[in-house]
Parts: sequence; structure tokens; C-alpha cells
Amino acid sequence: MFNEKKFDKLFELMKEKKLDAVMIAPSSDMEFLVDYHAHADERLNCLVVLSDKRYFQISPLLNYEEAKVKYPEDAVFYKWADGEGFLDTVKKSFEDFGLIGGRIGVNETIRGIDVLDFQELLEATFVNAHPMMEAFRIVKSNEEIQNMKKAGQIADEVMRDIKNFIKPGLYEYEVIEEIKRLYKEKGADDISFSPIVATGKNSSMPHYNAGTSKIQVGDNVVVDCGCRFNNMCSDTSRTFFVGEPSEEQRRVYEICKRSTFTAQDAALSGVTAGSIDKVARDIIDGEGYRDCFLNRTGHGIGFSVHEAPYIKPNNELVLEEGMAFSIEPGIYIAGKFGMRVENIVVIENGKGVSMNHSPVDIEDVIIKL
Amino acid sequence: MFNEKKFDKLFELMKEKKLDAVMIAPSSDMEFLVDYHAHADERLNCLVVLSDKRYFQISPLLNYEEAKVKYPEDAVFYKWADGEGFLDTVKKSFEDFGLIGGRIGVNETIRGIDVLDFQELLEATFVNAHPMMEAFRIVKSNEEIQNMKKAGQIADEVMRDIKNFIKPGLYEYEVIEEIKRLYKEKGADDISFSPIVATGKNSSMPHYNAGTSKIQVGDNVVVDCGCRFNNMCSDTSRTFFVGEPSEEQRRVYEICKRSTFTAQDAALSGVTAGSIDKVARDIIDGEGYRDCFLNRTGHGIGFSVHEAPYIKPNNELVLEEGMAFSIEPGIYIAGKFGMRVENIVVIENGKGVSMNHSPVDIEDVIIKL
Repeated sequence: MFNEKKFDKLFELMKEKKLDAVMIAPSSDMEFLVDYHAHADERLNCLVVLSDKRYFQISPLLNYEEAKVKYPEDAVFYKWADGEGFLDTVKKSFEDFGLIGGRIGVNETIRGIDVLDFQELLEATFVNAHPMMEAFRIVKSNEEIQNMKKAGQIADEVMRDIKNFIKPGLYEYEVIEEIKRLYKEKGADDISFSPIVATGKNSSMPHYNAGTSKIQVGDNVVVDCGCRFNNMCSDTSRTFFVGEPSEEQRRVYEICKRSTFTAQDAALSGVTAGSIDKVARDIIDGEGYRDCFLNRTGHGIGFSVHEAPYIKPNNELVLEEGMAFSIEPGIYIAGKFGMRVENIVVIENGKGVSMNHSPVDIEDVIIKL
Repeated sequence: MFNEKKFDKLFELMKEKKLDAVMIAPSSDMEFLVDYHAHADERLNCLVVLSDKRYFQISPLLNYEEAKVKYPEDAVFYKWADGEGFLDTVKKSFEDFGLIGGRIGVNETIRGIDVLDFQELLEATFVNAHPMMEAFRIVKSNEEIQNMKKAGQIADEVMRDIKNFIKPGLYEYEVIEEIKRLYKEKGADDISFSPIVATGKNSSMPHYNAGTSKIQVGDNVVVDCGCRFNNMCSDTSRTFFVGEPSEEQRRVYEICKRSTFTAQDAALSGVTAGSIDKVARDIIDGEGYRDCFLNRTGHGIGFSVHEAPYIKPNNELVLEEGMAFSIEPGIYIAGKFGMRVENIVVIENGKGVSMNHSPVDIEDVIIKL
């Protein structure tokens, strides 16, 4: 439900950024602020928060009933009907609230085509407010961290169980279905993203999601999944081997694992996000796989599954107590295979503490045939 | 796979709109043009089509492997890595292709915050290209229509079967799971959107999607679902009654049904989309439910489940042979119930032909206890 205290830090940040208002479309931003999980479509459905602590909601008529219960009774709503479109309604609301001539932030989910229409229609300056919205949630409260740990514990249990389920002849999508079933069974509120199961050559694509291949003896299978518990997310990856791994598979796995755990140990309050990436990347580079580490080392996580801080090269953001993020360096060899070991780490008492504990020793991730 | 002929009409439209290029992020636009079903996230993954028939792809490094197989071997790729961000890459590509100073369209899925960053970084004029992209696909080919009819036939079969499944005591989400199972069993490629099952009071919210209520005797249940067949979508709604409907439920149902079928008969080539909405709306208004018809009468459908033409008040777009759209007027009484009967209609030989044929007579939608 609506909780005005959540807005306090946002007002501070808006003052700092000299914003008169911020427009927030359906997103984790909206869900976090008003617990309104709106279906995003082409209709503008948007919370506008002003720096003077007023706010209003621009609502498609057909979402009004579901939206109004998320707000106090006296909240101001600007409803618009399909026949009229929303541009005149936005204009009216800006006039009523004195936003003409103002500096207006937009969150990540306001569409580009809408920003272009607003610029044409309204005398106001529109600004990318995404960095501000990221700063808003980057430090987690104790309660949030406890919920993330519980979500991580469920993910670990799923990872243990799914190892026993994987066998040659299964399609990837069958493993995905079982993962979803397990999360439900174990009391997760929901999955936090569509599980990734990538076998054999498919595993060289970090975000592979087709699900259509059959698991074969000799494959390695990357499983990447997570859930929500009391609104907070988990996310973990393990690489399993279907039968005895080859020498090359073993070697690459050990490099990936070492990269993850060394970076985890380097995650301390006061160091930069970029320096953690460098620790992970140097290990992989040093073993000759520089061009096979395609992505960043990790991403922040919390109320949403991808958020700040991003653990990537050159990111000068300094880690602080209460920040949480994934460590998931990987080696992806096109046409052959890919691997990663992913844990979520939170900075507690100055040190990076892993929220994931499912086994990573190579003997523990080999599926015996 | 990549099919250059698909681009011909786009080049014509770009000339008409005086656009030098159009930027297309993951969306049905991208799927239609290059059959690339990319996972949309915060990373810019974008096809840029120029009016001089050149094109290039801006690709996150980690999507490159999946993307390059969708294009001819000599396609130009601008890859960018997480550590560097994509703005410099966009700038370089614009310089290489002579787009500085140009008029650049953006499709519906380019984010507002990215447009704002582009505007700051690049001397170019950005334009809302969504109406152009809508015009691009609004007239369906014969083959597309045949695939839509097949998708509609599968949806009708699911609707017949789900009537026999619904009973008091089931949760809405259990009905949703069965709908998904039925679509798979009947040979759909996929569902076209997450099915809506709304019972009792929930049915007064046209897009209700919580799924957490139990079906009770006396409820009416709105079921709204569809699938894909060879890339083309279906979408149909029926309202079922759990046991004998009340007098009021009967009366409202008959009004909704009459509104749908009268509007269907009024759908002819040469009339405006707005006029069809008026036919549907006048019937509901005439019965005193003006304020209970919350949304538009319908939306276009084809390669994506919501596209042009929108059947809504004041839409002056003239219907033509080969356009396809839903007719789904409804009556939504907050706190009580809501109803609709939805068919997809295509203009063939000048007339609106329904692609849906599952029963609508009230005796056929009553679930006997």
C-alpha cells in the first residue's frame, strides 16, 4: 500500500537534480513507490511526483479502478479515455500543477515516442531521470536484505533439486517448467525472471532463451534463475555437466569459478564497482579468454532483478554498506559452450557476503549417468 | 529469416515522411522485419534502416551471436560492450552512415531516456515513427489472413473446451493454466498474450490479471485469450455464467452481444474506424450504460496482438480490404461485474468477416451445475 515515507529520499534527490517533477510509468519504480503492478501497454499510465511533495496519477479510464485503490482517497487522478488519447490530459495536468516551463524527469519506462510528443506539445524541459531513480533504491534496508536472503535460499534449494532432475534426452523447456514448479512448491511469491536453461552450444549465448534443444551426454548446462520473496529478488547461476566433463570443460569451469569467488572476496565497501569487474576480468584475461567474456561481471539487484550498481569496467561508483549485486563472470566460446557461476553478494560489515550457497565444486555439479 | 522484400513498403513510407532513417528496438517491428525475437532490456539493441536502403544493427556484445544469424553475412554490425555503454557507438554509426543532421524516426520501443540522451549527444532531429510503423503492417496479405484464421480456429476450440473445465471452487489461475495447456495441445506456436480470467467482481476490470480469486456460483467469468500460428495472432473473449444468470446479468449480456454483432455488421471497407466504435457505443449508451463502457471498441491485430487500426471514437482512418481488428465493446460495472463478447473481424470482399465462431447464445455460455 501507499507509504509516504518511501518518497522522502526521492524528494531529496529531486532537489539535488533540480527537477520540478518526475514522470513514472509502469515499472519497478512504480511498484516500489505505490505497490501498483500495472500492465504496461501503449496507454500512458503514469505517476507524476512533484518536488513540492504533491503528486497525481494520469490514468487510462480502464485502469482507474485498479489504480485508485493503491492511493489515498484524496489522490488526484487525471483520467483519459481511448477515444481522446492522453496528450490533452497530460497538458491539462501540467497546467493545473504549474509544470509548464519546468524541468521534468522521466523514468526508464516512459516511451521515446511519448517524450517526443510531450516535447512538441509542452513547454517544458525533459530530462533522463533514470540515474536518479537508480540512486533512490541502491542501498537496501535490513528488512530488504533479509527478504533477499530468503529468496536466495529458495533459489539454492531449487538449484540443488534441479541437478537431480536434469538428464540426457530432456528438452531445455522441460527443465524450465520444472524450475517454475519447484519455485512455486518452495513458497516463492513468483519467479523474478524467465529461467534460462542452455545446453551444449546454446550455453555460449549468455541470454539464450529458446528452450528447444535436447540435453545430450557431454553437454554442460547453464541454469540461471531466481524468485521473489516479499517483493525482493534472487538470481543465481550454476553450470552442470551431463556425464564426465572434458579436459577443456574442466579447465574453463575452474577459471569461471575462481573468477567469481575472487571477485566476491574483493567486494568491499569503499572500492569502486569497476574494480570488482577488473578483478574478475583479469583472471579470465590472464587465462587467454579475454574475448570470451562478453558481458559485465554483474548487476545490482533488490526490488528489481537488474538495477544499480552495475559491476562493469570503468564504473566509478563506490560500493557502500547495503548494496547488493550479482557476481557472474563467464566464458562464452561461440559454437562450443559457455559457463558461469553466479552468486548475489551484499556488502555487510564492510565485506561482500554471498547470499547463495548451492554447491560449486566440480564433483558436485557433475550429473552422474 | 531476413527477407529484403519486406522492406520495400517501409522505404516508400520513409520517403513520404521525409525520414533519413528509422531506429527499431526489440519489438514486433523488429520481429516482423528480421525475425529476430530479442529479449528487451536496458541495453540498446537496435536495427537502423536508412531511406537509401542501407541498414545496420547496433548490438550489445552479448547479443551479437544470436543477432548475426538473422542477417545476411555482409550486414554491418556496431557492437558495444557493457563497460563502454552504447552512446559512443551510436554516435560513431551515425557519423559513418551520414546521419548527423538527419531526420531520424524512432519506433515504439526505443526508451524515452535514450531519446533524451541521443538528443543531447547527436545533432539530429528525432521523430515519432510509430504511426509510420503502424501503417506499414495495417493491410494483411492473404497468407497472413489464412494464418490468422487458423489461430482463431484454435482459439475457438480452446474456448469450447474451457467452458467444460470452469466450475465453482477453481481459482482463476487454474483456469489460466488449463488454457495454456490447451493451446499447446491444439498446436498453437505460443499464446499471443497472458490469458485473462476474471470472475465475479473482478470482471469489471477489463485488464484484470491477478488470477487469485475462486470461482463461485452466480459469478460470470470473462475469458480473454489467443494464440500465435505461423507468427500471426488470434484474440477472443467470451463471458460464461456459473449457474443461472440473474435478470440483470442476462440483460447486460444481451446488450454486449448485440453491440458486438451490430458493430461487426457495420464493419465495411470505406467506413471510418470511428464509425464502427460509434455503432457499438450507441447501443450501450442507448441502454443507459454509457459510463460503463470504459475502453475502445477494438484494436487491430496481426503480427502483433495490438496494432492499428484502433476502433475508437474519432478515429478517421478509413477501413480497407485486408485490415483486421477486434470488436469487443463491454459493460463494466465497478464492484459488481463486467462482460464482453469479442471477435476478430477482417475486411474481405468489402465486408467484415468474423474469424471467431465459438457459441455466444446465452444458453450456450451458461455452465450448468
